Amino acid sequence: MAALPDFADTGAVAAWVRTTPGPDRAAAAVTTAREATLTKPAGALGRLEGLSAWLAAWQGRVPPRAERIHVAVFAGNHGVVAEGVSPFPAAVTAQMVANFAAGGAAINQICRSVGATLSVHALADLRPSANMTAGPALAPAELMAAMRAGAAAVPADADLLCLGEMGIGNTTAAAALCLGRFGGRAEDWTGPGTGLDAAGVARKAVVVARAVAANRGAGGDGLALLAAFGGHELAAIAGAVVQARHVRVPVLLDGFACTAAAAALTALDPAALAHCQAGHASAEPGHRRLLERLGMAPLLALDMRLGEASGALLAAALVKAAAACHAGMATFAKAGVSSRAGST
Amino acid sequence: MAALPDFADTGAVAAWVRTTPGPDRAAAAVTTAREATLTKPAGALGRLEGLSAWLAAWQGRVPPRAERIHVAVFAGNHGVVAEGVSPFPAAVTAQMVANFAAGGAAINQICRSVGATLSVHALADLRPSANMTAGPALAPAELMAAMRAGAAAVPADADLLCLGEMGIGNTTAAAALCLGRFGGRAEDWTGPGTGLDAAGVARKAVVVARAVAANRGAGGDGLALLAAFGGHELAAIAGAVVQARHVRVPVLLDGFACTAAAAALTALDPAALAHCQAGHASAEPGHRRLLERLGMAPLLALDMRLGEASGALLAAALVKAAAACHAGMATFAKAGVSSRAGST
Repeated sequence: MAALPDFADTGAVAAWVRTTPGPDRAAAAVTTAREATLTKPAGALGRLEGLSAWLAAWQGRVPPRAERIHVAVFAGNHGVVAEGVSPFPAAVTAQMVANFAAGGAAINQICRSVGATLSVHALADLRPSANMTAGPALAPAELMAAMRAGAAAVPADADLLCLGEMGIGNTTAAAALCLGRFGGRAEDWTGPGTGLDAAGVARKAVVVARAVAANRGAGGDGLALLAAFGGHELAAIAGAVVQARHVRVPVLLDGFACTAAAAALTALDPAALAHCQAGHASAEPGHRRLLERLGMAPLLALDMRLGEASGALLAAALVKAAAACHAGMATFAKAGVSSRAGST
Repeated sequence: MAALPDFADTGAVAAWVRTTPGPDRAAAAVTTAREATLTKPAGALGRLEGLSAWLAAWQGRVPPRAERIHVAVFAGNHGVVAEGVSPFPAAVTAQMVANFAAGGAAINQICRSVGATLSVHALADLRPSANMTAGPALAPAELMAAMRAGAAAVPADADLLCLGEMGIGNTTAAAALCLGRFGGRAEDWTGPGTGLDAAGVARKAVVVARAVAANRGAGGDGLALLAAFGGHELAAIAGAVVQARHVRVPVLLDGFACTAAAAALTALDPAALAHCQAGHASAEPGHRRLLERLGMAPLLALDMRLGEASGALLAAALVKAAAACHAGMATFAKAGVSSRAGST
C-alpha cells in the first residue's frame, strides 16, 4: 500500500495529488482484446465493455474484478447554514449519521441489495466549518486532517470504491467550489438541494456569490479551493479520491457535492479523475453542468438527488456485472459458437 | 394461479389477452404515501420511488418485493434468414442455447452477479419459422404453441420477470412487427442487428418491406401480427407478458426484438404493457423509436445490443434496490430525524 504523505506539509500533499500513477495500458489492451473473443456480437455489451477496460487500467489487473465493493460516506457540517441555505436544520447531519449506524438509510438498503460494505465517517466530530461568506471554511490544519481522514478510509483491498456524503448545506459549498473552480454565474451552479423553492434558490445563489467574493484567489489551487469552500466532508472525499488512485482502487462518484469535491483536484492535475466514473447524473441541475465540464458521462440518470453514495452504488452494480461478464463468459472458440457467417 | 386459456381456441386466447387484471391502485397509494415518510428529502430517490409504486400496483402487495428475479430467454429460428439478413449463420441460435446451458453467455454471468434464476426455452426444437416474405411466418397452431410455451415459462412465485430472446434474424422480424403495427417506412425500423454494414441494412429494409407487403391486413390484430412476423420465440415472449400480468408478476422488457413482440399485444389492448418497464434503450435504432411509440421511458441507456435479457436484468438490479429501500428504510419519526426546519 502506498504510504500516505506528511499531512503537516501542504507541499507534500500537493505533490501526492500531482504524482498519482497512470493507467496500466497493457492491462486495458489485454482486456479489450479478450472482449472481442467472447460469445456476443462485437461491442454488443456497449458501455459495459469500456467499464471492464477502465477497471483493468486502474486496477492494473487482468481480468479486472468488481466483487469487493466498498462505500465510504463522509459527513460534515457547514457554517454557511447560518445563511439559511437549507430547509433542513444542521442537526439532521448527526441524525442521519445515527440513521446510517442503525441501518435505516437508503444507502444501508442498497448496500445489502448490491452486496457492498459501508463505512461512515463523521468529520471533526461534526463541528461546523467556518462560514465561507467571511473567509475560508477550513483552516489549513482542518483541511489536512479532513484529507487525511478521507485517505485513511480507503480499503486497499477493495475492487471498487463508491464515495458519498451527508452534510446539511453542502450543495451550497459544492456550488461555491464549482463557481470558484470553473467560473460562470452563481446561478449556474446553484439548485434546490434538499428542496428549496425558487425564492430560496435565488437567496442561496447570492450566498454562493458572496462566498466566492470572500475567497478570491482560491480558484487556481485545488487545496485552496477545498479550504475556502470545502467543508470537512468534501475535503475528505478529495483525499479519498487521491488515495484510491495511489492504491489502484477505481472510484465511482455520486452526486453534485461529491463530484464538486473531486473536481477541485483537477486544479492540481487535469487528469486527477481519470480513475473515476460518474455513477449517475443527479436531479441537482449543477451536477450535469459539472459532469460536462469534467467530460464525464454518467452511467445512470434516474432523477435521484440523495447523496450518501446511493447513485454511485447503483452504478457499481453495473460495473460488477461488467466485470463478471468479462471474466466469466465463454469465448467463441471454447463454446463452439460461429463468430460470423463463413468463419468459426 | 390464473388458469391458462384453451390454446386450441384463438378467440379464447384473444380474450385472455384483453381481460388481464388492472393495477392495484390502493397498494400503489399506500406505497407512495410511505415513501414520503422515509428518511430522505421528498422525492430524493427519483425514479426508484416510482418503481416501488409500480411494483406494488402490479404485484398487489404492500410492501412490494423484488427479491425473486426470474429471467426467461426464448430462442427460435427464422426462415427469413434465407434472405441474407444477418452476418451470423442460423446455426448460432442453437450454439448459443448450448452456451446458455453451459453457463458461458453474458446472461449467465449477470444472473450470478445480480442474483436471479434463469430458464432457457428453445421453441419448436429450433425449427425455423416460414420465410415471412412469402406469407405468415407461423401457422395458427404454431403461434398458439409458442404463446402457450411462453405462458408456461412464467413462475407465479417470481417477484419480477425479465424477458429476453436469442434468434438469428429476429431483428428483421421485429422490424416487420413494428412496421406492420405502427407503419412508417421500413428504414425507420431496420438497423444493423448483430453487425450489418450500411449496405446490409439497406438490403434488410427491403426484406422487411417485402414481408409486410406479403402479410397485408395483419396490422390491426395482435395475434395476426405475431403469426405474420413473429417467429416462435417472439410469440412466446408475448405469451409470457400476458401470463405474467394474470399472475401479478411485473415484467422488465429487454431490447428491440423483445419489445416489438410485446408491442404486438397493444393492438389487442392499448394498456397491455402497463405492468412492464423498458429495462434499457438498446443501440438498435428502432428500439428508441419503438419505446417512444409505446410511451415507455427506459431505465438504462448503455449502448447495449445483445438481447438475451441482459439489459432487462441489469435494470432489475435497480428495481431490487428500489424495493429494498422502500421496505427497509427507517421513517423520520422512527429514526428521530427532523424532516424540515421547524418540524420534527
